[in-house]
Amino acid sequence: MEQESRLAGTVRPGGRTARVRAAVLEATRDELVEHGFHGLTMDQVAARAGVGKTTVYRRWGSRAGLVTDLMIELAEQSSPHADTGSIEDDLLANAMAVVGAVTDHRLGATFQAVIAAGTSDAQAVQALRAFYLRRIEEWAKVVDLAVKRGELPEGTDGMEVIRAISAPLYYRLLVTKEPVDQGVARSAALRTLAAARAGAFVPLPA
Amino acid sequence: MEQESRLAGTVRPGGRTARVRAAVLEATRDELVEHGFHGLTMDQVAARAGVGKTTVYRRWGSRAGLVTDLMIELAEQSSPHADTGSIEDDLLANAMAVVGAVTDHRLGATFQAVIAAGTSDAQAVQALRAFYLRRIEEWAKVVDLAVKRGELPEGTDGMEVIRAISAPLYYRLLVTKEPVDQGVARSAALRTLAAARAGAFVPLPA
Repeated sequence: MEQESRLAGTVRPGGRTARVRAAVLEATRDELVEHGFHGLTMDQVAARAGVGKTTVYRRWGSRAGLVTDLMIELAEQSSPHADTGSIEDDLLANAMAVVGAVTDHRLGATFQAVIAAGTSDAQAVQALRAFYLRRIEEWAKVVDLAVKRGELPEGTDGMEVIRAISAPLYYRLLVTKEPVDQGVARSAALRTLAAARAGAFVPLPA
Repeated sequence: MEQESRLAGTVRPGGRTARVRAAVLEATRDELVEHGFHGLTMDQVAARAGVGKTTVYRRWGSRAGLVTDLMIELAEQSSPHADTGSIEDDLLANAMAVVGAVTDHRLGATFQAVIAAGTSDAQAVQALRAFYLRRIEEWAKVVDLAVKRGELPEGTDGMEVIRAISAPLYYRLLVTKEPVDQGVARSAALRTLAAARAGAFVPLPA
């Protein structure tokens, strides 16, 4: 029976298995937003999703498993990098996408819950690492395109440029607890661009 | 009796009240490092500090009160800003101080526990805001001195410069879960300096 339902999920991606996953991840997100990682329970997720507890335990194993799968889904849903033809506009688009995500009521709360969990839970750490690596790699391509167009110095480290735009936003959000808005995001993008143009993102010889 | 002991604390800062506070804050820190904010209990702190529970409840009120007082103490113990006469060396000293703190076994774990709590607890938010504001203001003075020496453009926002050095370190530590070391800290300081020299930290007209 279990064997059959797994097979079914494999061959019919829009079928019952996919619907169960969508319902469970939606419930996981709602529970995270309302109760945080420490308040998340498998039983409550199952109840909220209208799915049997055994199914949730069997397929996700633990609340960390739920959160990891949720982050995979969020990464898949995230939009691809901008390609405006101008590095300034591409980096501003990146900054606006990040500020939009972290200040979104549900999405921002989801990220914060997983980040809080990541201070003490190894599986949450893996979920964070995979999600952000994927997003940073996706957006680093705008820097590579700018280098090809001659807008930025040869050897500019695209991943570091993208990290440098997000960093001040998350720092305010999580650490100094200062406001994060589009103005802060804009400053982060423009300062990073100024540093990149000055060659500060070309790795130094060791 | 309660009245007397408070008075005693006020007039004899090195006396019993100060010793109790030191023991309780030390125990709070140990418990935070071992169990995180969610595992912190007033009773366990009292037991570890060898202090009566009623004293801890009366003077700190809640675990958030303990954490807030711990952050005040950590801010008081933190070293003043560098003053090497060179903005590059001052900013590198800032970056090394930050990386030293966040990678220190006990201090780093303490910060992470309070930051995790700050995603869902209003008093932890206040404790973080007060601590980091104080540290940022202290180090922003190195930028003001550099502007006076003519090393950086007039109007450079010192607090933003200092935030920009810490931000990539905390972003890796908390969000992307990538390694944080002296090389990362050095890059953060030098890139921020490049951006500051390019005038990127002079606020734009609105």
